[in-house]
Amino acid sequence: MTTVLWLCLLVAALPLSSASQCNLPEELTKEIRSYREPVNQIIDAVTAGKYKGKTYDELAKFVDTFGARQVGGEVLEHSIDYLLELMQTKDYDLENVHGENVTVSRWIRGKESGEMIQPRPANIPVLTLGGSISTPTEGIEADVVVYRSFDELDANPSSAEGKIVVFNNDFVSYGVSVVYRTEGPTRAAKCGALAVLVRSVTSFSLNTLHTGQTDYTDGVKKIPAACITVEHAHMMQRYHDRNVTVRMRLNIQTQVDPDGVSRNTVAELKGSSIPDKTVIVSGHLDSWDVGVGAMDDGGGAFISWYSLVVLKGLGLRPKRTVRAVLWTSEEDGLIGVQSYNKTHEKELDDFVFVMESDEGTFTPLGLIFRAGTKGACILEEILKLLAPINATTAQNSDDAVGSDISIWKDLIPTASLLNDNDRYFWYHHSEADTMDVLDPSALDKATALWASVAYVIADLKDDFPRSFEKIEDSPGVAFQPKPTSFLVAVLVLCKFLFL
Amino acid sequence: MTTVLWLCLLVAALPLSSASQCNLPEELTKEIRSYREPVNQIIDAVTAGKYKGKTYDELAKFVDTFGARQVGGEVLEHSIDYLLELMQTKDYDLENVHGENVTVSRWIRGKESGEMIQPRPANIPVLTLGGSISTPTEGIEADVVVYRSFDELDANPSSAEGKIVVFNNDFVSYGVSVVYRTEGPTRAAKCGALAVLVRSVTSFSLNTLHTGQTDYTDGVKKIPAACITVEHAHMMQRYHDRNVTVRMRLNIQTQVDPDGVSRNTVAELKGSSIPDKTVIVSGHLDSWDVGVGAMDDGGGAFISWYSLVVLKGLGLRPKRTVRAVLWTSEEDGLIGVQSYNKTHEKELDDFVFVMESDEGTFTPLGLIFRAGTKGACILEEILKLLAPINATTAQNSDDAVGSDISIWKDLIPTASLLNDNDRYFWYHHSEADTMDVLDPSALDKATALWASVAYVIADLKDDFPRSFEKIEDSPGVAFQPKPTSFLVAVLVLCKFLFL
Repeated sequence: MTTVLWLCLLVAALPLSSASQCNLPEELTKEIRSYREPVNQIIDAVTAGKYKGKTYDELAKFVDTFGARQVGGEVLEHSIDYLLELMQTKDYDLENVHGENVTVSRWIRGKESGEMIQPRPANIPVLTLGGSISTPTEGIEADVVVYRSFDELDANPSSAEGKIVVFNNDFVSYGVSVVYRTEGPTRAAKCGALAVLVRSVTSFSLNTLHTGQTDYTDGVKKIPAACITVEHAHMMQRYHDRNVTVRMRLNIQTQVDPDGVSRNTVAELKGSSIPDKTVIVSGHLDSWDVGVGAMDDGGGAFISWYSLVVLKGLGLRPKRTVRAVLWTSEEDGLIGVQSYNKTHEKELDDFVFVMESDEGTFTPLGLIFRAGTKGACILEEILKLLAPINATTAQNSDDAVGSDISIWKDLIPTASLLNDNDRYFWYHHSEADTMDVLDPSALDKATALWASVAYVIADLKDDFPRSFEKIEDSPGVAFQPKPTSFLVAVLVLCKFLFL
Repeated sequence: MTTVLWLCLLVAALPLSSASQCNLPEELTKEIRSYREPVNQIIDAVTAGKYKGKTYDELAKFVDTFGARQVGGEVLEHSIDYLLELMQTKDYDLENVHGENVTVSRWIRGKESGEMIQPRPANIPVLTLGGSISTPTEGIEADVVVYRSFDELDANPSSAEGKIVVFNNDFVSYGVSVVYRTEGPTRAAKCGALAVLVRSVTSFSLNTLHTGQTDYTDGVKKIPAACITVEHAHMMQRYHDRNVTVRMRLNIQTQVDPDGVSRNTVAELKGSSIPDKTVIVSGHLDSWDVGVGAMDDGGGAFISWYSLVVLKGLGLRPKRTVRAVLWTSEEDGLIGVQSYNKTHEKELDDFVFVMESDEGTFTPLGLIFRAGTKGACILEEILKLLAPINATTAQNSDDAVGSDISIWKDLIPTASLLNDNDRYFWYHHSEADTMDVLDPSALDKATALWASVAYVIADLKDDFPRSFEKIEDSPGVAFQPKPTSFLVAVLVLCKFLFL
């Protein structure tokens, strides 16, 4: 082979070499690799054996029985009762199963309607944003003004005076675009608007409405706020661009009931020798009042408690405790986890590693986590064990990961399920969040990954390193083996070019 | 080069050779190729010049002004008046613009609601099928029974007695799956069902309802029929599979008004020397009462009349007349075209070629047509002129093509727009049929193809051959040049393997 070809092969091999920066102690690497057998056992049992399809079946039964589980309502509490009972049945027999009370608020959607009266009569479906106040009982009637951005509003603030403001902001990413939902009402109210209609935060729509929490700012007048579909936002924009006057009637009725009590739902697999040290797997049980919360976050909650079922069923009891916590009241501001954080303040030092899945349970790819370089290297090594389900990607993040667990971002190493969730926001906070989003096989793989990672971290000789220190040049994506097809392509190219 | 490489190159070239089976007279081939300049002129003007984006803009203005255009209603007639006027404005100045009366029926959707009362209270959105009768005013309440297929029903027909039947048939293709919408009510009524809920006919759903016409059979009791979403059909199936009793209330109110008058909308570019011979370009203006009929079939109708605008504007007046006919009342049974067929009975011999676009105006790929081998070869040659917009695929069909124009399948050569319409049924007959489905650039290309093909066929020295005779071994896809990337890949592979 020529020198060029050698160079070429080197290039092909490069993506693999980044892992070598890790330099984990050989003993630790060996220790992690010794878990290949139990991890394979988990993977086999969940993807092909006795647990195949079970996470999906249990979740389907759950959402079919209860539907949407909005915080503050009876249905969520009944669903929690059901789960507490289910997890203690003979089949599952989880340990220390209990609920932990959380004080929660209760915002209730009432009637809501949007009606265009000019330039032509048409029903404009609206879905009130969480936390919104009501219009007067008889609704409001006003002209509509459309802005593509806050900048457009700020450039001509008086144009919003006395109007129904439509924000038709293009979807960039959830993080970027959601500010129109959270801050839109305050921004428009400051300019004298009567109400706000926000374009649903999604990259794809079939005339789909997507709700979510909105935030009012203290000292600024609260005005009613709802979302409209992407399609209707576009239509409003076109009218606006043609100088066609649009007039609408908007009626939004909401109600805030006195605070109530919900529960974080807890189950454990008690550690065999270091039971006070804990690895947490989690997701949230509450959902929005539209759809049935199968994806957000039924999937995350169910892979969490079902991981315990699998470990217990396979007789895999790790040294440390693995605890499933199914948060309540995530949707209206991470209330459940905040309460848990207070109640368990004294135990936080014993929380070795906290995992959460709240960004979909599509086909799992690996983990995104916030850990120091050593932690990242350990996770890389652990995730190599997930090669049989192609879920080996280890991605170290500088930012917080997850939703609920983000409150521990600088205290405890945290990880969130990395999955093939490109379509997540197609369904998010909408009537389309149903069991149809989920795939039994993908859910099995997610359960297998969840159970495997939790098991290994909970069973290692030493605690997972509680450090966020990053060694320079440590890889952002610490270990991401390139697919074989990539290597073959590089080799073919090399041979073609240089031989 | 080696012999093997020569063989290899031969393989690479093979896909091109199929066109050579055509053996068109050289003179005709030359004649067709002489249209390269006007076709390029059309393509440039529509995709980059003065008509760029205009088809989309006119269509957007149209659907924003009128919304849905259900047959029998005032709105459709107002939209026809608007178009008749628009096509005669100084800017467009089309010829022989007029409406031709058609007697149409009027079926009107009233209130409709589905409510699950067992095993839990839940709203089940329903969308009544076109033509359905009403339930009693107070609705009906009954247990639900679910079938995956007519076979499942037929295997146990008494199980449907007194029930609300849900058909949860998997989507195979529209043609295969739509029978549950059209025949479901009759099949269930024969077994004593009270009402039918058909799973929406689509391959993808965001909790989306898809209506469409249903057919009752004479002599069989009519029962009310609506669609439900794929998601709810799946949920019903899961309850059924777990032996959970589902009970529903269903209320469907519909109305049939006395027959009225609608119009087929006609405009022409009169032929310069053989004006009595006509090439027709067409689509339908009526839509369902959900969505705004932008895709079905605003796009098809608008590329048709806008093709005339382009030809006239570019001074491209062919020998024969090009006529745009925008059918009415397609959705409830091709009523407009049937009327046209009768009224124009004596001219049918002069209809040289009839085109229709009613399967989407996504990025155009070419044409699917029903023609004899000689006709296919002519179309292949014409479509080669569309290479600048990659719309050269010529597909000869043994079956009828199009919807309205299918009534002429054995009389006149017909063609339908072949386009990248994989997602067509995601939007079809639903609230999601809006301007968001359409893309200005794709629509421009469709207009360019439509205008080009109509122009060339209307201008050729000889009439398009009125024959359906197929010479044996003539290619099913008569001409489909492989993309350059394919050729490059074959060459690379050859070089790699044999050099």
